[in-house]
Amino acid sequence: MPVIKLPKGFKLSVARAGIKGSGLPIGKNDMALIYSEDVSTIAGTFTTNKVVGAPVVMNKDKARRGKARAIVINSGNSNSCTGTQGMKDVLEMAALSARHLGIDEKLVYVCSTGVIGVPLPMPKVRKGLKALAGGLGNASVDAAARAIMTTDSYPKFISRTVKVGGKAGRVTALSKGAGMIEPDMATMLSFILTDISVPKTALKAALKEAVEDSFNMLTVDGDQSTSDSVLMLANGALGNAPLKKNSAGLKRFGAVLNEMCYEMASMIARDGEGATKFIQVKVEGARTVSEAKKAAKAVANSLLVKTAVYGADPNWGRILPVLGRGGITMDPLKVDVYIGKVKVASGGQAAPGAGVIKKAEKELKKKDIVIRVDLKAGRAKARALTCDLTEEYIRINSEYTT
Amino acid sequence: MPVIKLPKGFKLSVARAGIKGSGLPIGKNDMALIYSEDVSTIAGTFTTNKVVGAPVVMNKDKARRGKARAIVINSGNSNSCTGTQGMKDVLEMAALSARHLGIDEKLVYVCSTGVIGVPLPMPKVRKGLKALAGGLGNASVDAAARAIMTTDSYPKFISRTVKVGGKAGRVTALSKGAGMIEPDMATMLSFILTDISVPKTALKAALKEAVEDSFNMLTVDGDQSTSDSVLMLANGALGNAPLKKNSAGLKRFGAVLNEMCYEMASMIARDGEGATKFIQVKVEGARTVSEAKKAAKAVANSLLVKTAVYGADPNWGRILPVLGRGGITMDPLKVDVYIGKVKVASGGQAAPGAGVIKKAEKELKKKDIVIRVDLKAGRAKARALTCDLTEEYIRINSEYTT
Repeated sequence: MPVIKLPKGFKLSVARAGIKGSGLPIGKNDMALIYSEDVSTIAGTFTTNKVVGAPVVMNKDKARRGKARAIVINSGNSNSCTGTQGMKDVLEMAALSARHLGIDEKLVYVCSTGVIGVPLPMPKVRKGLKALAGGLGNASVDAAARAIMTTDSYPKFISRTVKVGGKAGRVTALSKGAGMIEPDMATMLSFILTDISVPKTALKAALKEAVEDSFNMLTVDGDQSTSDSVLMLANGALGNAPLKKNSAGLKRFGAVLNEMCYEMASMIARDGEGATKFIQVKVEGARTVSEAKKAAKAVANSLLVKTAVYGADPNWGRILPVLGRGGITMDPLKVDVYIGKVKVASGGQAAPGAGVIKKAEKELKKKDIVIRVDLKAGRAKARALTCDLTEEYIRINSEYTT
Repeated sequence: MPVIKLPKGFKLSVARAGIKGSGLPIGKNDMALIYSEDVSTIAGTFTTNKVVGAPVVMNKDKARRGKARAIVINSGNSNSCTGTQGMKDVLEMAALSARHLGIDEKLVYVCSTGVIGVPLPMPKVRKGLKALAGGLGNASVDAAARAIMTTDSYPKFISRTVKVGGKAGRVTALSKGAGMIEPDMATMLSFILTDISVPKTALKAALKEAVEDSFNMLTVDGDQSTSDSVLMLANGALGNAPLKKNSAGLKRFGAVLNEMCYEMASMIARDGEGATKFIQVKVEGARTVSEAKKAAKAVANSLLVKTAVYGADPNWGRILPVLGRGGITMDPLKVDVYIGKVKVASGGQAAPGAGVIKKAEKELKKKDIVIRVDLKAGRAKARALTCDLTEEYIRINSEYTT
C-alpha cells in the first residue's frame, strides 16, 4: 500500500495509554491526536440516538461555531452512559490537551469509542494526552487509523487530490468501525482532513450530502451506536481562494468527498464483524427517495437475506417479503429482482429461463454481491451497503466481554 | 405428555403427499385436515405483509362471512409469489376438498407453509387431499401438529377448558413456526378450535385481543412471513347459549384465549431457529402502549442483545442505545434496566452495588430470561417474546436450500 499523505498543515500523533487494559497487545496504541497548525473550519455529523456519549454532546456544541484546531481520540472506552462524571471527564480531556498544545480549549474535540457504561480510567487518559502532545507529528495516517481501531480487522484510510484554483488540494480520510454498533465497542468514527479552504456553510452542506448516501446507508447489524461521528476539517493551508457557492471547484470537491465517503463506508461494511462478503443493495423504481432508502435498508438488515448471501443461496423468496412489510409503495406482482446480472424474479414470480438459479448461485459465490430490486412504482433510487451474517458475528458478539 | 383432547364436533386427519419431496423422512406427513361436523363460526388474523401467499388472499376473503367447515393445511410449499397459477391452485384445493368431503367449498380454508416462489406440485397435492378426506378422524392433535411442521423441532399444541352455562367447553390450539419467517419456510400458523358457541363478532374481538399481546409481540428474527395466519373455529357443539357481550362466560373465554395465545407464542419463541434461551422483554413506564410495544420489539430484535443473552453477557450497555434509536419518549438519564431480578442500570448509568454484574450473569445462565426496562416516561407497558441468536441460526439459514 502506498504511503498515504496528509493534507498540508495537519499533524498526527499516537500514544499507548492502556485504556484497553490487559486486552491491548504490546506495542499497540489506543489514543490518537489530529492537529491543525492553524485554525481550521470544521463540519460534523453525529449519531441521532437519544442515548449519546458525553463526547458527542460536547463536540456537537463546539461544532456550531465551525472552528477547530485538534481532535483527541481514544479507543477502549466510549464514555457513554457515564452521567455527570462522563461530562466532567470529556471537558477535562479537552482542557488538558489544550494546555499541553498551547491552544484554545474551545477548539479541541474529543471522540471516544469502546465499552459503554464504564467511567474512563482518567489517570491513564491524562498520561496519554501528555504523550500525544509531546509526540506531535510522530504518526502516519496508517498508525493513527490503527490506534482508533476496536474490533476492526484492518485500518481504514484513503486520500485524494482535487484541483482548485490551479492548485492540487488534498483530502484524506480515516475511519474506524466494524458495525453500526460493535460488541461493547459502540461506534463508527470518521475523520476527513483537507488543506483546501472551504467556507463553513459550504463544508457543512458538502459533508451532509456525502454522508447521506454513504455512512447513513451503511448497516452491519441494524444497531445504532451512541457515539457515531464524522468530523471534517478544512484548514485552508493550500492557500486557495475559499471555494465559492456553485463554483466548479466546490463541485469537484463535493464529487471527491461523495466518492471518498462511499469508499470509507464500503471499507467498514467489508470489515463488518464476521463478514465474508460485501453487499450492495440497489433499489430502483421507488416512488420517493425516502421509500427507496427504506427499502434498501430493510433488505440490507434482513437476517434471512444476509444469511442467504453467506450461504450463496439464490433465494429471492426471502427478498420480496422484506419489501412488503410496510411503508413502501409497490405492487408485488410487478417487482423484479436481480442478483448480480441475473434476473431471478420477474413480476413478483420466478423469472423464466433455464439455469437461472444456477447462474445466480455463481454470482453469490463472489466476494462482492449486488442485489438489485426494481419496484416499478416510480423513478427514485437508493443504495445501501452491508455485509453477510455469519457464525463468526455470533461468536464475536456472544463471547466478547465475559 | 397427556393426550390432548379435541373440542366436541371436530375431527382431524393427516396424509403424506410428498410435497416436501425427498427431504421428507419416511413415515412423516406433510398435509393435515381440520374438520368441523357442523358449520362453525370462524375468526382470523393474517399477515400484514403486502406480499401474501395465495391462500391468505382466499382465506381473508372467505373469513369475512364468518363461516367454516374445514381447513386444509400443507407444509413444504407456501404457494406465495406464484402469481395467477398460485391463485388457481388454492381455489382447486378448496374445491376438491369440498367435493371429497361433500361440503360447500365456500366453507373450506387452505393454509400453506414452505418454500416461496415455487408452484405447488398439484398432482401430489390432489392425491393428498383425497387421502385427507378418506382418513377423516385418523389423527390426534399431536399428529396434526407434526404434519404442519417445517423447521420446528417439536409439535406445538395445548388445550384448556372453560366453564360456560354450567358446561365445560374446550379450547384446543395447534401451531407451527420457528421464526416470524423461516428459512425458505415462511410462516407461523396457528389453529384454535372450540366447541363453545361464540357469536362471530365476539369471537373476532376476542381473537384480536388475544393475538395483539401474544403472536403480534413475537419475533425470532424480525423478518415477516407472507403467510402468517391464526384461524379460530367455534362450532358450538357444546350446546351452550351463545356467549353474550360483556357476559361472565365471554370474559372467562377471553381470559383463557389470551393465556393460550401467549403460551403458543412462547412455544414458538422457545423453538426459534437455533435458540437456546427464551427471552421476555418487558417495557414499563412508557408514554403510550404503542411506544411500549415499539421499545419491547426493538430490544427483542436487537442482534447485540440476542447474542449477549446467548453468551450470558450482562451487557446492559447494548440495551440503552436500542431504546434511543427513535420514536420512544425517554430521558436516557432516568431509565432503569433489570436482568431477571437484578437492577443493572439505574438512571441510565451502571447500578451501584457490589457484584451486580456477577449476579446478572447468573440470571443470564438460566433458560428463561426476563429483561425489564422502566422508561420512567409514563404508565404504559408491553411485553415482547423472543429467543437468543446463535451460530445454529446462521447454519440453518445459510445452508438450507442449496
